[in-house]
Amino acid sequence: MKKHNFYAGPSILSEYTIQKTAEAVLDFAGTGLSLLEVSHRGKEFVAVCEEARSMIKELLNIPESFEVVFLGGGASLQFCMAPYNFLEKKASFLDTGTWASKAIKEAKLFGEVNVVASSKADNYTYIPKKFEVPADSDYFYFCSNNTIYGTEIREDPHFGMPVIADMSSDIFSRPIDFTDYELIFAGAQKNLAPAGVTLCIIRKDALGKVSRAIPTMLNYQTHIDKESMFNTPPVLPIFAALQTLKYYKEMGGIPELQRRNQAKAELLYNEIDRNPLFKGTVTCKEDRSIMNICFVMNDGKEAFEEEFSKYATSKGMVGIKGHRSVGGFRASCYNALPIESVQALVDCMQEFEKMH
Amino acid sequence: MKKHNFYAGPSILSEYTIQKTAEAVLDFAGTGLSLLEVSHRGKEFVAVCEEARSMIKELLNIPESFEVVFLGGGASLQFCMAPYNFLEKKASFLDTGTWASKAIKEAKLFGEVNVVASSKADNYTYIPKKFEVPADSDYFYFCSNNTIYGTEIREDPHFGMPVIADMSSDIFSRPIDFTDYELIFAGAQKNLAPAGVTLCIIRKDALGKVSRAIPTMLNYQTHIDKESMFNTPPVLPIFAALQTLKYYKEMGGIPELQRRNQAKAELLYNEIDRNPLFKGTVTCKEDRSIMNICFVMNDGKEAFEEEFSKYATSKGMVGIKGHRSVGGFRASCYNALPIESVQALVDCMQEFEKMH
Repeated sequence: MKKHNFYAGPSILSEYTIQKTAEAVLDFAGTGLSLLEVSHRGKEFVAVCEEARSMIKELLNIPESFEVVFLGGGASLQFCMAPYNFLEKKASFLDTGTWASKAIKEAKLFGEVNVVASSKADNYTYIPKKFEVPADSDYFYFCSNNTIYGTEIREDPHFGMPVIADMSSDIFSRPIDFTDYELIFAGAQKNLAPAGVTLCIIRKDALGKVSRAIPTMLNYQTHIDKESMFNTPPVLPIFAALQTLKYYKEMGGIPELQRRNQAKAELLYNEIDRNPLFKGTVTCKEDRSIMNICFVMNDGKEAFEEEFSKYATSKGMVGIKGHRSVGGFRASCYNALPIESVQALVDCMQEFEKMH
Repeated sequence: MKKHNFYAGPSILSEYTIQKTAEAVLDFAGTGLSLLEVSHRGKEFVAVCEEARSMIKELLNIPESFEVVFLGGGASLQFCMAPYNFLEKKASFLDTGTWASKAIKEAKLFGEVNVVASSKADNYTYIPKKFEVPADSDYFYFCSNNTIYGTEIREDPHFGMPVIADMSSDIFSRPIDFTDYELIFAGAQKNLAPAGVTLCIIRKDALGKVSRAIPTMLNYQTHIDKESMFNTPPVLPIFAALQTLKYYKEMGGIPELQRRNQAKAELLYNEIDRNPLFKGTVTCKEDRSIMNICFVMNDGKEAFEEEFSKYATSKGMVGIKGHRSVGGFRASCYNALPIESVQALVDCMQEFEKMH
C-alpha cells in the first residue's frame, strides 16, 4: 500500500533525493566507492559541498554579505552557538513554543534575556503580535515555524536591529527578505536532507563582535573560513541536500514550492473547518502554519480520536499523531509531500465523517 | 577495476554495511519508507539506536558504570565538550600530533593545561614515553592513534587519575581496559559508520563535578538521560553503525579484528622495511600504528614519488597520498579493509621495485 508520510521530522524527502542517494551509497560519482566511504577532501565530494552551498544562495537569493555553511550537531546546538557568537549584553526573544523556549534557556547562560511576548499561557495557540523590542537588544530572536503547535510567522521581522531566526521547519517554503537577519539556521531534516546536518546562513560582518572566547567548533567564523570543511562534515546528508536542491530548482524554485505548499495547506485547513468531526488547534487563523497542520476531534467528538487514528493508518497515513503537548493530529506537509497525500488524508476525513 | 580504499577517513566500510544501508535508503525495516525520511521517534529506529548502543557495550565489554551515546557535531566538538564537562582546574595532555594539539587548544579556554610531553620537535615521529603526570590533574588526556603521523598507543594508561581518550581512528581495533577512563570518544567515520556521528563512552559518576554552567547540548548528562534522543540524532549514520557492529560480531568480535589488523600491518610494514625504495616515517617501530601506515620514498629515491603514486593509482589504490604534514604515502588499514587490498599494495611496491 502507498504510504503517505506526514512525519514532523525527520520527514518526507523527494523520490529524486532518495533514489539518487541510494545510487550513491552503491557507487558515488563513478568513483567505484560508496558515498559512505569516500574522503570529504576528495574532489568529487568537495564539488558536491560547493555546489550545494552555491545552490542554496541561488535558490534563496542570498545577498553576498552572507555565507552558507553546513554544520553537524543538530539545530539544538545552535541554541547555544547563536548566543556564544552574537550575545554580548542583552537579546530579545519572542516565545512562541518549545523551540523558542529552548533557545531562551541557553541564551540565559550568555547574557540578559528579554522575552518580548509569549503565548505560553494559551498553550501557544497563536503568535503574539503586540510587543516592543528594546532598542538596546543585541538581536531579536524568533522561531519562524512551530512544529509542535502548528503556528508560523511568514513575514521577516524588521525592528531596526539584527534578527536571528530558527527556520528549521519552514526554510525553502517561501522567499526570505534577508535585510535584517544576521543568522538563520535550520536543521535539515524537514525540507532539505536526512537528519545530521544543520544549514546556517550567516551575515559575515556581524561576527567577531562579542568579547568572550569562543571554542573553535562553536565559532561560525571557523566554518566560514574553511568552507564547511574545518572538520569532517556529514557527507551523506550534504549529498542528499544537493539532490533536494536540484529537485527544487528543476520544479521552479521557491515561488513554485510556496504555491504548492499554500495549495496543500488550503486543501487540508478547508476540510478541518468544514468537517464537523474536527477542529483546528490554532486559535488565530492567520497564524496557522502551512507546514504543520494541527487538528483535534471537535467538541463532543473526542471519543472518536483513536478510531480515526486507526482508520487513517489503515489508509496508509503515517506520522499524523499530534505531539503530546497538543494531542490529536498533526499533518506535516513539508515541501516533498505531494498534494495527493493531502487529498488522501482529506478523503479519510470525509469517509470517516460518513461513517459517523 | 577493483578499487582498494586506503582513505584516512571517511574510509572503507564493510560491504555488509554498505549493502544494508543502500537497501534501507529504499525501504527501511519494511516501513515502506526510506531510512532518510523516517521519524527518529518511530519504534523501528528507536530499536536500531538501542541495539547499536547495546552491541557497542557487548563488543567492547564496557562496564555498567559507563553509558554509550551517539552525538552529532564531529569528534572535533569533543575537544571543547570534554573540558566543558570535566576540567575544573587543571588537566594534563600528551601531545602526539595534530588532534591532541587541537584538544589542548580548546581545553585552555576552560582551565590550566599541562602538556606532559610532546614529540612535536621531531614532527611527531614517535610517542613520548618518559613523563610524569601531576597528581593534581583533573584528568590525563591522550589521542590513541595519530591518523596523520601514523603512531599509536595501544596500551590503556594508568596514572591513578581519570583518563580521557580520543580513539577516533582506532576504536574497535583492540580490547580496551576501561579501569581509569572517564570518557572515550570517537568520530565514527573510520571503523564504524559514515561521517556524521560521534561515539562517546562516558563514566556516569564522573559527570556533574565541574562548577561551570554547561549548555544543554554540550552536557553529556543530557544525552545520557535521553538515551541519545534529546534532539534528532544522525539517523542514517547510526543505522550504518549497527550494520558494522553486526558484521563485527559475526566475524568474531574485537579479538578477531585485532588479529586481522595486526596481520595486515605486519604484511605492509615488512614490505616497507624490506623494499629498498621505501622507508617508514615513524622512527620508533613500537609506536607504529596498525591503522595508518605512513611511508615515504627512501633516501635518494625521492624522485620516484610521483611515479609510484601514479602507478599505484593505475592499479586501483585510492587515498594513499600522505598528509601534507608528513608527505609520501599513507595506507589507512581500518577494520573493513581486507588483507587482499594490503597485498595488492605490497604487490605494487614489489612491481615498482622491479621496474627500477
